Amino acid sequence: MAEPALDGLIEALRRLPGVGQKSAQRMAFHLLQHDRDGAARIAASLQKAVADVRHCDRCHTFTEGAICSTCSDERRDARLLCVVETPADQAALERTGSYKGLYFVLMGRLSPLDGVGARDIGLAQLIERATDGTVEEVIVATNFTAEGEATAHVIGETLKSRGLRVTRLARGVPIGSELEYVDLGTIAHALSERR
Amino acid sequence: MAEPALDGLIEALRRLPGVGQKSAQRMAFHLLQHDRDGAARIAASLQKAVADVRHCDRCHTFTEGAICSTCSDERRDARLLCVVETPADQAALERTGSYKGLYFVLMGRLSPLDGVGARDIGLAQLIERATDGTVEEVIVATNFTAEGEATAHVIGETLKSRGLRVTRLARGVPIGSELEYVDLGTIAHALSERR
Repeated sequence: MAEPALDGLIEALRRLPGVGQKSAQRMAFHLLQHDRDGAARIAASLQKAVADVRHCDRCHTFTEGAICSTCSDERRDARLLCVVETPADQAALERTGSYKGLYFVLMGRLSPLDGVGARDIGLAQLIERATDGTVEEVIVATNFTAEGEATAHVIGETLKSRGLRVTRLARGVPIGSELEYVDLGTIAHALSERR
Repeated sequence: MAEPALDGLIEALRRLPGVGQKSAQRMAFHLLQHDRDGAARIAASLQKAVADVRHCDRCHTFTEGAICSTCSDERRDARLLCVVETPADQAALERTGSYKGLYFVLMGRLSPLDGVGARDIGLAQLIERATDGTVEEVIVATNFTAEGEATAHVIGETLKSRGLRVTRLARGVPIGSELEYVDLGTIAHALSERR
């Protein structure tokens, strides 16, 4: 088939993460056959987001102004700074309703194999942000994966050397789980960090 | 978070088939963080496809002109008409290199539960197309699912009553498979249709 508009669309949809040739084809067919309004809306939303969405000057998360709504919320406790990998992680913490401090979003994690270094996660900006004189404690809430732990280690060492109090989310047995099915590393941590 | 451009993008991406809240979020973050060029390209491709892609007047598949490249290829055998559900099914048949006739693409299948009836799959147009005086045999290549079989049955009865020769793709054991792992219905069919 020589249909440049259709082939071009399938090719473009493959740039979405986790979408291969078959999924891209299915998406293109679905939109063109059943949901042309949806296709137009996705196109318009993409263009609007590319034009309007930038990074917050203070915490690096996505925002449309210079400072995001969380950073500009004066009811927040500015003495606490929580470091997360992504806006999705921040959203998970927000949903708990039990954290009232501010955030710094790395927009990634250290990953030497993928060429992601200290510059890409804004380590210099994090240091500047954490040493503003108001922040007293930095809670490192990167993921408990190998890369997240390595990132937490680097951030922890860097900030501690500047005299900041640095803590890490507690590791332990998830609520609702049975010990029998929890991995050994987690149980070992929960034992050594018992309280 | 009150970020209308970002939230609007996530909401719009959920219109893609098979994409829920989490995937849409992941896609939006990925595009905005790592691939803004890709986002712009997807937007442009969607707009171009919505504007340019229409249905072939003869076979109903997606095309950018009035008649698709397959239907306008004079080396094709116009006495054979193969009925498929989707352009992807047509592409699968084309890849075999063993079919030289023409196609009619239903762009769906009969599915009363989803409100898809004879009009939606263009049954009237198929009848008109198959009774053009040139077509001698209609090969029904709808999928071997419950809905595909029902669609094949309806098409078969309708076209046979108009004096056309109607055939169906052979059912049988897939090449490279071991009988032990083939489902019983397929083996029973392969037995009764042995040759």
